[in-house]
Amino acid sequence: MPNFSEAATLENGTDITIGKYDTLNSAAEYDLATALNYGQANGSPQMNRFVAEHTEIAHNPPYADWRSCLTVGSTGALEQALRMLCDKARCDAILTEEYSFSTAVETAMPLDVRVFGIEMDGEGLLPNKMDELLSTWDEPARGARKPHVLYTVPSGQNPTGATQGEQRRRDIYAVASKHDIYILEDEPYYFLQMPQYIPGQSGVVDKTQSVDDFLSSLIPSLLSLDTDGRVMRLDSFSKVVVPGSRLGWVTASAQMIERYTRHAEVANQGPSGFSQVVLHKLLDTTWGHEGYFRWLMHLRGEYTSRRNALLDACAEFLPKEVASWQAPRAGMFHWIKVDHAKHSGFVSGARSILDIEDEIFAKCIDKGVLVGRGSWFRAEHDKPPRDMFFRTTFAAATPENMREAIRRLGAAIREVYGMA
Amino acid sequence: MPNFSEAATLENGTDITIGKYDTLNSAAEYDLATALNYGQANGSPQMNRFVAEHTEIAHNPPYADWRSCLTVGSTGALEQALRMLCDKARCDAILTEEYSFSTAVETAMPLDVRVFGIEMDGEGLLPNKMDELLSTWDEPARGARKPHVLYTVPSGQNPTGATQGEQRRRDIYAVASKHDIYILEDEPYYFLQMPQYIPGQSGVVDKTQSVDDFLSSLIPSLLSLDTDGRVMRLDSFSKVVVPGSRLGWVTASAQMIERYTRHAEVANQGPSGFSQVVLHKLLDTTWGHEGYFRWLMHLRGEYTSRRNALLDACAEFLPKEVASWQAPRAGMFHWIKVDHAKHSGFVSGARSILDIEDEIFAKCIDKGVLVGRGSWFRAEHDKPPRDMFFRTTFAAATPENMREAIRRLGAAIREVYGMA
Repeated sequence: MPNFSEAATLENGTDITIGKYDTLNSAAEYDLATALNYGQANGSPQMNRFVAEHTEIAHNPPYADWRSCLTVGSTGALEQALRMLCDKARCDAILTEEYSFSTAVETAMPLDVRVFGIEMDGEGLLPNKMDELLSTWDEPARGARKPHVLYTVPSGQNPTGATQGEQRRRDIYAVASKHDIYILEDEPYYFLQMPQYIPGQSGVVDKTQSVDDFLSSLIPSLLSLDTDGRVMRLDSFSKVVVPGSRLGWVTASAQMIERYTRHAEVANQGPSGFSQVVLHKLLDTTWGHEGYFRWLMHLRGEYTSRRNALLDACAEFLPKEVASWQAPRAGMFHWIKVDHAKHSGFVSGARSILDIEDEIFAKCIDKGVLVGRGSWFRAEHDKPPRDMFFRTTFAAATPENMREAIRRLGAAIREVYGMA
Repeated sequence: MPNFSEAATLENGTDITIGKYDTLNSAAEYDLATALNYGQANGSPQMNRFVAEHTEIAHNPPYADWRSCLTVGSTGALEQALRMLCDKARCDAILTEEYSFSTAVETAMPLDVRVFGIEMDGEGLLPNKMDELLSTWDEPARGARKPHVLYTVPSGQNPTGATQGEQRRRDIYAVASKHDIYILEDEPYYFLQMPQYIPGQSGVVDKTQSVDDFLSSLIPSLLSLDTDGRVMRLDSFSKVVVPGSRLGWVTASAQMIERYTRHAEVANQGPSGFSQVVLHKLLDTTWGHEGYFRWLMHLRGEYTSRRNALLDACAEFLPKEVASWQAPRAGMFHWIKVDHAKHSGFVSGARSILDIEDEIFAKCIDKGVLVGRGSWFRAEHDKPPRDMFFRTTFAAATPENMREAIRRLGAAIREVYGMA
């Protein structure tokens, strides 16, 4: 839960109450007596209605029989989807970004589903590289069947912060259609799409934007482009309302959602009734769709300020001779490339990329700063990296602490590179 | 959630509050800021401490390195356990009672884990039958490896209401040791063990019993007999506090719990923080262990009154020429045998057990009463039943409604058997 949510709550200040028999009294459509009893494995009709309406407003999927249903969170949803779509007995594999969300890779591994990474640029995975990989798939050499599933985080990807632009999404979708690939679109950061970064203008956020303008400003989701019914979108409240609810939702064709629900009945029986009734009261009864979108706009503004503060610090403290980056357009992660080829130990052949990465990481720890090592996030753990990266985040720390952390990261890099 | 919980709440009448930063202020050991953030997949330390203490008081497992951890409820826990213990590639199978909890059987099926039923009597599964089945296991004929897992509900079993006595439990454990069987002990009804049924003495419950006497009166759990470390116990709040929490716990050896936790990290990431903090505030901060045991004693009393009312109605209305039953000693289910061999259609060979069961079931529906057909609960769906049963429940209906329902069931049986 973002620390700054408190401020917004205090501004409003209203108490929200939930009665035991509100429904019986017609005071509400959902109450504790319903929420805290046994329910359906796909969640309550009340909360399902809310997420379906929200999905229609935000994505309007271009086919008639799409459905949403609640999940126990996106990790659980991803595992259920992988168990539905992949089978170790058939040597199934999935595609993902070359640097990928580590929990997703770790979820596939115990299912014996192999993961293959696709090369990326600043806009995420490269469609032509995906096409090439699939067109030249060599099953015996790869030790896996040609993949039929893509797992992707299109906006503010963890760990790279990359956001696929609209054309990039259309191109990825076209490659998926060509090779009959089913897409798992994991979008926890979708609504944290930010305006362009302008150095030194930290904290400038347009508070006059309308909800319609906000929604039009968002890059279309893969779900909204899905004319084939080949996308399952995973949505989450973890990054924008509350991680501890263990409640999210998926959207896909009615056929997929029916299978997903049957699976949930014998895997987890759906999300907590406490979580459902609290979120329903907040999102549906209290805020409504407009209010929830306004909350997301508010959050997006807060994250923009934090991102800008982090980027200002990077410009001030990181050695540009070896460090380079792009301003993230969404999410909460910032990905910094450090040029290993400029390290004398690498040039002499004495040190590998992983050696140098390890030294910078350890030096940061010595200075009291934790950065994510790029190699932690490689989709193919056994493949040596071609470049060196570090992941930083603007999720939670104060601007002052971020500035100090980046100053120390800069000092660590300089020391390891023997710079003044 | 039992309907009568309301009364107990009103009696007490205290408001319970949870602050956002109680922990920071040292006002509490657990607060919303902690519970609603990301947590461990095995649940919060606070709630884990409570269930571990509760388990020690109630079961005191006889080895040192046992552990408990939270689950997303017992169905999810069972699925995780089956995925850890069984592999379809090895043709694994499990044993259970001949009539078993249908959700458990349905959880095993999509995992391609075969389920074999063990013959039962009024005290549940028969150890000598289990020994015989395992001693004479014929892998090719059975189409499955000799089972190494037993799934059992020792107290108030669903659907039969059978409760294993202490000697029965010791005998089952001995057979499990002999054949190296791992036991999944599913005990949602453990604390609903009731005093003996005395006809006409409905509603008489001893309210002066001490917590110690209550605990001593309970039949020892398989966990409490587990000198080998071969038991995983599944506990649930669904039948005694709130089904909608989707929160339970498992207890087993440290080795099993460590594997279970790793599994939860990529399957569901553990139970809802809302559920954890609400239950912690109620069970730990407000009630404490003694208060929780007193609540369970209160519930046990309520269920005893309901059971007695149902049994009184059975004695009054069911035709004893064909219907027979034992008074359940625990839980919320009552299992009624109806003698198919006394039906003229069966005697003439014109009707099967399933035909007659179907006719009684349909006749009850016509009369506005739903009873569970015994055949629904058969562990081996494809094996024709040897006897005919109906499951009734005293979980939720009022004594008046139960009486009327049993009157109609009696009438339905009489009509189908052509009795006056």
